[in-house]
Parts: sequence; C-alpha cells; structure tokens
Amino acid sequence: MLYFEDFTPGRRFDYRPIAIRAADIIAFASEFDPQPMHLDEEAGRRSILGGLSASGWHTSAIGMRMMIDAFLGRSASQGSPGIDFMDWKKPVLAGDVLSGFSLVMESRPSTSRAGIGFVKFRSELTNQRREAVAVSEASIIIRRRDGGMRP
Amino acid sequence: MLYFEDFTPGRRFDYRPIAIRAADIIAFASEFDPQPMHLDEEAGRRSILGGLSASGWHTSAIGMRMMIDAFLGRSASQGSPGIDFMDWKKPVLAGDVLSGFSLVMESRPSTSRAGIGFVKFRSELTNQRREAVAVSEASIIIRRRDGGMRP
Repeated sequence: MLYFEDFTPGRRFDYRPIAIRAADIIAFASEFDPQPMHLDEEAGRRSILGGLSASGWHTSAIGMRMMIDAFLGRSASQGSPGIDFMDWKKPVLAGDVLSGFSLVMESRPSTSRAGIGFVKFRSELTNQRREAVAVSEASIIIRRRDGGMRP
Repeated sequence: MLYFEDFTPGRRFDYRPIAIRAADIIAFASEFDPQPMHLDEEAGRRSILGGLSASGWHTSAIGMRMMIDAFLGRSASQGSPGIDFMDWKKPVLAGDVLSGFSLVMESRPSTSRAGIGFVKFRSELTNQRREAVAVSEASIIIRRRDGGMRP
C-alpha cells in the first residue's frame, strides 16, 4: 500500500499501454459527448480531428483508469480537489495505442486536516507515434501512513 | 445553428437539471475510476467524501453532456484543446440533482486557421442545495459562420 510519504518528488509511475477501440469511443460519446466527430468515422474524417476521435473527457477518463492500474489503486487515495490543467494536444483516434506515466511534482501535508496530504502529479498520455495526446497536472489527496492514529 | 459569432462575452446558457443515480456512479467508476468511495456506499461513508460519490471525471463528463444538450449540440463545435482548470469543490453523491450553466468569457478568431475561433467558457455545476460542485474554464473551437467559404 502506498501512502502520502511514498510519493516523493521525481518518483514516476509508468502505465500499461491500452488500445482505443472505435466501439468504446462511440459508446462513451453517445452517453457523454454526442458530437459527430466522436460518433461517426466519416464525420470524424471531415472534421479538423481527421477521423473518429475520442472525446477529450473519454481520453482523460482512460488516463484515470491507467493511473489507477499503475499505482493509485494500491494507494491510500482519498480523491482529488480538481485539475490544474488538461491539454488535449492531439486527437485520439480509433486504433491508437496509448501509454503514459504520472510523475510526482510536489507533495505537502494538509494544514487543516490531520492524516492527509496533497500530492501533485504531472501525467502524460502518448500515442504509438510517441506524440503526446494529453498532458495534465492535478493533485490527489492521499492518507499519511500514520493517518489512522491522530496524535 | 450557433456559430463562433453567436458566442459573445456574457452570453449564458443554462443546463437542464439531471439526477445522479447510484447505479450510474458505480458503472462509470467500475470502468474508469475504481476507487472504493466511487463503488460502494459503505466505503463512501467511511471516506472523507461522506457517501457513495461520483468520480470527478464522471461529474465532468455529465457536465459535458449537459453542455451539449443546452447549446453545444446545436453549434458548429469542432472540439476543445483542453481545460484551463477544473475544481471539484464538493462531492457529488448518489441522489444529488445537478444543474448548471456555461458563460461565455471571451472569444477570439484563430490566427493560424481560417474559418474557426476559440470561445472560452466558464461552466459551473451546482447541487440541489445550491452548492457549487464543479467549476471549470475551457475553450472550445467553433466554426465561423462564413467558415465554409474561405476568402
């Protein structure tokens, strides 16, 4: 189990690659982002994205899952107060294979609440051509190792 | 159809309210953010979030859908280059009813590509207690009304 103290600046966690399927792009978009370029190959080709492309929110949610599988799922994560920024730098197209990593930028104990701290990560997703497709920074609230025993 | 020129600073688009169901929270989290507080009522109650709570990414994706239904679905949107910031200010719990709006902050024609422009929106989601749960700013690429006819 990984606690706040384990997330030292510079520590990097690599993700397992994942293939993006057209059916998944369409299913996510149908529910959350039904714009033509996320729903239809031909509409995608005619758009400035150049093909059936994942909603940025889908790409971000996939990145979250990769982060969980890489390390956050075996941590004392308590959730996140938000995203500092998220750049969708290139379209994510059906058939792309994404890999990526999260890098610890900084960490600080909470001043208002004992037992937890904030860890800021920079996370990057890249496609099979090694182009960055999504770059973000966000903090996650993580319990301290001694978090269950308040002094 | 709404084009770039229609998104004048100060224009506001209100969302239709939507109820957040436990089953939807669990389904989204199972796929994208399988952390205990997003999967299980009891684990949620024990967490600092205070109950079964939606993944922030789920809340954001729901906000995207509300934005589509309110106005973006009848616009010449071409997608987004990213999110300037997204604050998840309060937990979104099963049974909450979210409403919200997008407000045009600024707009500018693209200098590198004819026919499109960038519109920055501030978007807010609030719960049934009128507490802000998610606040964000993000730009969307929107075709100009004359976008199909390059000079």
